[in-house]
Amino acid sequence: MQTKKINIFDTTLRDGEQVPGCKLNTKEKIQLALALEELGVDIIEAGFPISSPGDFTSVEEIAKVIKHSTVCGLSRAVEKDIQAAGEALKFAKRPRIHTGIGTSDTHIKAKFKASREEILGRAIQAVKWAKAYVDDVEFYAEDAGRTDNEYLARVIEAVIKAGATVVNIPDTTGYCLPHQYGEKIAYLVNNVPNIDKATISCHCHNDLGLATANSITGVIAGAGQIECTINGLGERAGNTSLEEVVMVMKQHAYLGFYTNIKTQKLNPISRLVSETMRMPVQPNKAIVGSNAFAHSSGIHQDGFLKDNSTYEIIKPEDVGADGSKIVLTARSGRSALAHRFQKIGFSFTRNDIDILYQQFLIVADRKKEVKDEDLQEMANEHLAANRKEEKAHIL
Amino acid sequence: MQTKKINIFDTTLRDGEQVPGCKLNTKEKIQLALALEELGVDIIEAGFPISSPGDFTSVEEIAKVIKHSTVCGLSRAVEKDIQAAGEALKFAKRPRIHTGIGTSDTHIKAKFKASREEILGRAIQAVKWAKAYVDDVEFYAEDAGRTDNEYLARVIEAVIKAGATVVNIPDTTGYCLPHQYGEKIAYLVNNVPNIDKATISCHCHNDLGLATANSITGVIAGAGQIECTINGLGERAGNTSLEEVVMVMKQHAYLGFYTNIKTQKLNPISRLVSETMRMPVQPNKAIVGSNAFAHSSGIHQDGFLKDNSTYEIIKPEDVGADGSKIVLTARSGRSALAHRFQKIGFSFTRNDIDILYQQFLIVADRKKEVKDEDLQEMANEHLAANRKEEKAHIL
Repeated sequence: MQTKKINIFDTTLRDGEQVPGCKLNTKEKIQLALALEELGVDIIEAGFPISSPGDFTSVEEIAKVIKHSTVCGLSRAVEKDIQAAGEALKFAKRPRIHTGIGTSDTHIKAKFKASREEILGRAIQAVKWAKAYVDDVEFYAEDAGRTDNEYLARVIEAVIKAGATVVNIPDTTGYCLPHQYGEKIAYLVNNVPNIDKATISCHCHNDLGLATANSITGVIAGAGQIECTINGLGERAGNTSLEEVVMVMKQHAYLGFYTNIKTQKLNPISRLVSETMRMPVQPNKAIVGSNAFAHSSGIHQDGFLKDNSTYEIIKPEDVGADGSKIVLTARSGRSALAHRFQKIGFSFTRNDIDILYQQFLIVADRKKEVKDEDLQEMANEHLAANRKEEKAHIL
Repeated sequence: MQTKKINIFDTTLRDGEQVPGCKLNTKEKIQLALALEELGVDIIEAGFPISSPGDFTSVEEIAKVIKHSTVCGLSRAVEKDIQAAGEALKFAKRPRIHTGIGTSDTHIKAKFKASREEILGRAIQAVKWAKAYVDDVEFYAEDAGRTDNEYLARVIEAVIKAGATVVNIPDTTGYCLPHQYGEKIAYLVNNVPNIDKATISCHCHNDLGLATANSITGVIAGAGQIECTINGLGERAGNTSLEEVVMVMKQHAYLGFYTNIKTQKLNPISRLVSETMRMPVQPNKAIVGSNAFAHSSGIHQDGFLKDNSTYEIIKPEDVGADGSKIVLTARSGRSALAHRFQKIGFSFTRNDIDILYQQFLIVADRKKEVKDEDLQEMANEHLAANRKEEKAHIL
């Protein structure tokens, strides 16, 4: 089977860090950058150097300590931004400048009060400025999701000619449906004559809950890089979740894509980012939520105990999560109850379990979760009652 | 344009409530059921009556108070389950029994140790049992996402013949990619001769972050019902988020789908469910997260202040969220700063803002978020310095 490496571009430290409440100091940013390199991220977007003196320093310090990953700095299509990015990256082993401009008519008119031709000129100029500092230049066509495809193709062709090595097609507002985003990437593959000279990148936002699906559809259509963040952090409803796209490609290996991510580190880094940025992860978050591998209904628990593949497609240990949990609640069935009794040292017969299950349901209707100590008590009472009964028979 | 009503089947009180820690008492379940009816949900899955005496009572009491929505009870393909569901629903104005069985080979072999023919027989039997209690019977083919399409089509044809009014095609393990799930629904539309006699339902899980995309692709392929929960609660990584699928269909109105959901109630009910079930919603959750409408980077804030459509596709008031927030951090730019100064009563010139912006960045690099009181202080100092300078000129 033909396989294609998909580059993982992590922007937790840029698009994630710009979120209200997520700001980090330089020391914290370095710690996360090192963890991202350890995870196997190909490109670390370390910050937006022109935005503040603190962020300039963070990018500069990250550039010094990162050995293998590419370190990237963001800029607008503005000379002083690009200059700041170039300077902040001067110690990087593999530096990349990420520059670009809005290309949708909404952005061209409302933000820039300019024409399409002017924007095209500014895009080319920005790439040329960046090329004076680094070889590896990524161009973003902001709001590409709502940009007319024909104009977008002209911009992309021109920036590749000017030296862009990566072309980023952001769905900035999280508007696209998967098939639309895929068609946009396919349009560029088929209509930009020099597209083979650059890597297409997907940068999707999650405003409608579609970022993961859009990124995967983009890769299927020919993109070679996904921009994402740990826990899906980012502006508004966030970016594509790194852990989700990586696991989609791993679980659907027949698609022919692979990444360098060490998936066993996904849960540890999720917790590190959540704690450092003080951003909670909801229990039902895919891959990294605390309930992502918890089974609670009786139907599920019974099936899972017979064969875990009935209800689980990912092994928790493959993503560094604690083992699958069987939580006992009023929705649990007899097989989960018997299994738990066995775990705490009681092997009951089917008849015993039938009797104990009725008692269990009464406790479970009262409590949210039935714990081992409750079961211990139930088991002891049941055994005492049995002994009494036996005694009665003897006497 | 042709439009098609898509039924919203909410399972917050069944698939959501079975989650560890989410168990509710009857009073709480009734309160949420009334809120769901108010929201405009077509079908409320109220619980799993056989699972515990408490849940039986909850379904019975919900059936008594709900006037417009269909009230549904879950059961396995087991006579006593179906009997319990029928009894619990006897006061419902519009009762529905939801019954079914696993149809994937993994489920047939590991869970049931049965053959495909036996499972087919049990499926037909279950629908017939349910038909003795209610007209409206929904059949679920558990793990349909991994079920062979040809066999699935045979099962679906047979249960419709036996009287099923709705056929549910669950992607139980959250495995499918959008195009695969869409193709599965399309296969049924094209290969089940009596498919026009029933509504196809999508029930997707979010283990890989694809539940929303899968459900929408299912509807595009011909399904007429989506099963979902508030905040995407449910087993493991949860179910499809009601708020996401509803807003995808609303924002992409040209697809030709509509629902009865009163979208202004989405944020209030999200908070109610989160509080009642004690399940936090992460800030970057689409539609209902606390940051879903917060703008923090300078580029975004500037664009947003010029024209909110540059970075926002949904109006916060359309989903009952507080107005869009402009949060001042070290990533904010001059235009957001000037805008906020104006809001608190200071109209500064461009020159003033240039000076104040440098001071602002120093404060912002130190603090996570710059508040109005910080700005007030900065403005006062700046004005005092100006007055001093003027005085110096006069003297």
